[in-house]
Amino acid sequence: MTFATELFEALHASGWDGQGITRDTYGVGESAALDIVEQAARAHGLDTERDAAANLVVTLKGREPELPFLACGSHLDSVPQGGNFDGAAGVIAGLAALVRMRAEGIAPRRTIRVYGLRGEESAAFGRSYIGSSALFGVLPAADLNLQHAVTGETLRDRMRAVGAAVDRIERGDVLLPPASVAAWLELHIEQGPVLVAREMPVAIVTGIRGNIRHRSVECIGEAGHSGAVPRSLRHDTVFAVAELLTLLDHAWQSFLTSGSDLVVTAGVLGTEPAEHAIARIPGRMHFSFEARSESQSTLDRYYALFLAACRRIEAERGVRFALGPPLHTAPAVMDPGLVERLRDVVRRLDLPDQPMASGAGHDAAVFANAGVPSAMIFVRNEHGSHNPLEAMRMDDFDRGAEVLRSTLVEGSEFVSQTGGV
Amino acid sequence: MTFATELFEALHASGWDGQGITRDTYGVGESAALDIVEQAARAHGLDTERDAAANLVVTLKGREPELPFLACGSHLDSVPQGGNFDGAAGVIAGLAALVRMRAEGIAPRRTIRVYGLRGEESAAFGRSYIGSSALFGVLPAADLNLQHAVTGETLRDRMRAVGAAVDRIERGDVLLPPASVAAWLELHIEQGPVLVAREMPVAIVTGIRGNIRHRSVECIGEAGHSGAVPRSLRHDTVFAVAELLTLLDHAWQSFLTSGSDLVVTAGVLGTEPAEHAIARIPGRMHFSFEARSESQSTLDRYYALFLAACRRIEAERGVRFALGPPLHTAPAVMDPGLVERLRDVVRRLDLPDQPMASGAGHDAAVFANAGVPSAMIFVRNEHGSHNPLEAMRMDDFDRGAEVLRSTLVEGSEFVSQTGGV
Repeated sequence: MTFATELFEALHASGWDGQGITRDTYGVGESAALDIVEQAARAHGLDTERDAAANLVVTLKGREPELPFLACGSHLDSVPQGGNFDGAAGVIAGLAALVRMRAEGIAPRRTIRVYGLRGEESAAFGRSYIGSSALFGVLPAADLNLQHAVTGETLRDRMRAVGAAVDRIERGDVLLPPASVAAWLELHIEQGPVLVAREMPVAIVTGIRGNIRHRSVECIGEAGHSGAVPRSLRHDTVFAVAELLTLLDHAWQSFLTSGSDLVVTAGVLGTEPAEHAIARIPGRMHFSFEARSESQSTLDRYYALFLAACRRIEAERGVRFALGPPLHTAPAVMDPGLVERLRDVVRRLDLPDQPMASGAGHDAAVFANAGVPSAMIFVRNEHGSHNPLEAMRMDDFDRGAEVLRSTLVEGSEFVSQTGGV
Repeated sequence: MTFATELFEALHASGWDGQGITRDTYGVGESAALDIVEQAARAHGLDTERDAAANLVVTLKGREPELPFLACGSHLDSVPQGGNFDGAAGVIAGLAALVRMRAEGIAPRRTIRVYGLRGEESAAFGRSYIGSSALFGVLPAADLNLQHAVTGETLRDRMRAVGAAVDRIERGDVLLPPASVAAWLELHIEQGPVLVAREMPVAIVTGIRGNIRHRSVECIGEAGHSGAVPRSLRHDTVFAVAELLTLLDHAWQSFLTSGSDLVVTAGVLGTEPAEHAIARIPGRMHFSFEARSESQSTLDRYYALFLAACRRIEAERGVRFALGPPLHTAPAVMDPGLVERLRDVVRRLDLPDQPMASGAGHDAAVFANAGVPSAMIFVRNEHGSHNPLEAMRMDDFDRGAEVLRSTLVEGSEFVSQTGGV
């Protein structure tokens, strides 16, 4: 059994709750995972520590330790009843690289560190990227008062219990100066079906999609007897919203045809139960709106089109869309130089090279937005994530881990004139 | 105060429950309304009785009582917290005509009867047209076991309590032979906004729309992470249903343009609360489908188009529509000869004449489907029906009542070669 397989099995045995894998954010399951990984690192002669946000850090010291270090890894928590690969794969891939480098007697020029981050999933506290955000001083102080969805404990108490420097985090101290990190490389299972569909074992991520959202747009028309009101006198909200969504769908298709990166979803939608009747013209309905793209300008253009469509349908159908303020999350751009390095390795390994956007968010976005050059490697995976059916093949993992390892080995030697990798 | 105004006020005083008018089906409020109308009829020298379904019947005997009689009227029950005009207007208009004929010494050739029907509204027992259906032996025996939505009493007990011949009704006896009725004329407030929009006080009804319905069509696709699944790999039920509804809306518009009578409604629709998340591609949603038309062939053509659209979208989007069996209600055609007679009177009164379909169902459909030549007069009314804001102007009512009266006076003298009016 390989080092990686053994570690996956150990994590599985520790995290299995009878239904799925549960490694609770800043909780017992997550801590157990950190302990297992730390033990494996030490058993192979690597240095380990917990940083000020209680993340696990495994270090292979470089020949020139004063240089900014190379960082890799991912998170070790999971959603309740989730899968074994989401997060853990990136930590294990990084650790496996360090173990092998050490076994081969490779002493890198730069120090290399593997992070086993905490608190990436939002299931427990409704907040993602806790462990990485805390490192860069960007976890809002108020979020420490968030209560655990099940136990009601505050995030502050949970973080303090595992040794995080809660007072510094609350002050917004920078626990990890971005300039001290040369790059962040994160291997992660793909959470969508793209690599399966494209028959590709791995892909390099070019950016993490940002989004623009309305949690609930209300469409207000006029109720009436379904038999007694002719079409010309109706203010039917269902047909109005159907027209709007169909326009959005067609526009989406056009954006794709012209090469834009975009996904659009109305995940929650419905008429109002209080006025439900088959024979009533629906006078109110609501829907959620979400557009995601790697490109802020694509988001801006698509959102402008959405607003214009709302206005036109309002005028034509005598309905009103109550939008409220939109919620924004900016896209995170992966470092083009790093992306090129990774793609170069992919091609040298004779793997198909077709980069893609990440639709889901990742700790890599926190590193990138803190100013650390960042990039990601996606590994093919079936059945999505956040469920026990996640299915990453070990040979795909091995290829992704090899892309990471080669890039770490080469990147640790290379220091550009500007200090970057 | 006119006879009609007085009677409306008496019914209002009796039926007002603090929020609206409540004349409970085969209950106390409905019985009180029958009593008030009966008392007014007797005070003007008319004969009254209760028929075997406990409906009120007011009679002005004709010179040739062996001829099939002319019938008019409507229902005297209301929905809970409804309005004062829905139903009662037709009874009062008929009674006012008889009172005036008697006052003017007109002895009609045919007998004329005014019906104050019971149990037209479905609010109490989930069953409409109880009083008229019982007369023609078409009230399903099993419906006598229906329980009152509030009190839980059976319809059987409520009917027996007010003197209906429950045993005969249960056997399906014909209590009123259709051949004994020359015609049924029903005045009713319009329950939609058409006459207000057209600025017409009254309109003659050409037919009562039938319908074809699916209470809930399920669309089954595939859930997924909204950020991680590209458009080409989605099986998004919301965009699928939006496309279907938009197609239905366009087809509806085409049917109208080509002169068909049609209204289409999806009154109840939504994604599944169990999988609700803004960031989840909706894997399931449901919607109700209802098309109504005066014409069975229009319903058939539109429904075929609906099915074809479902099949096409299934193929294109990889979703499935679970339809289940449709529910049918046949349209009721109003008697063309009667419609012509009524329109002729409308024109002679210098009123605009533009006939229309009834979208809501009425007792007239029961009479028509039993084989009695039937027709309806709609009176302009604001704010729809089934609510205390119903607003029929008394001058509009007077015009509608005059159309009814003139037609009764003329129709009672005319006997065609085939025995009809």
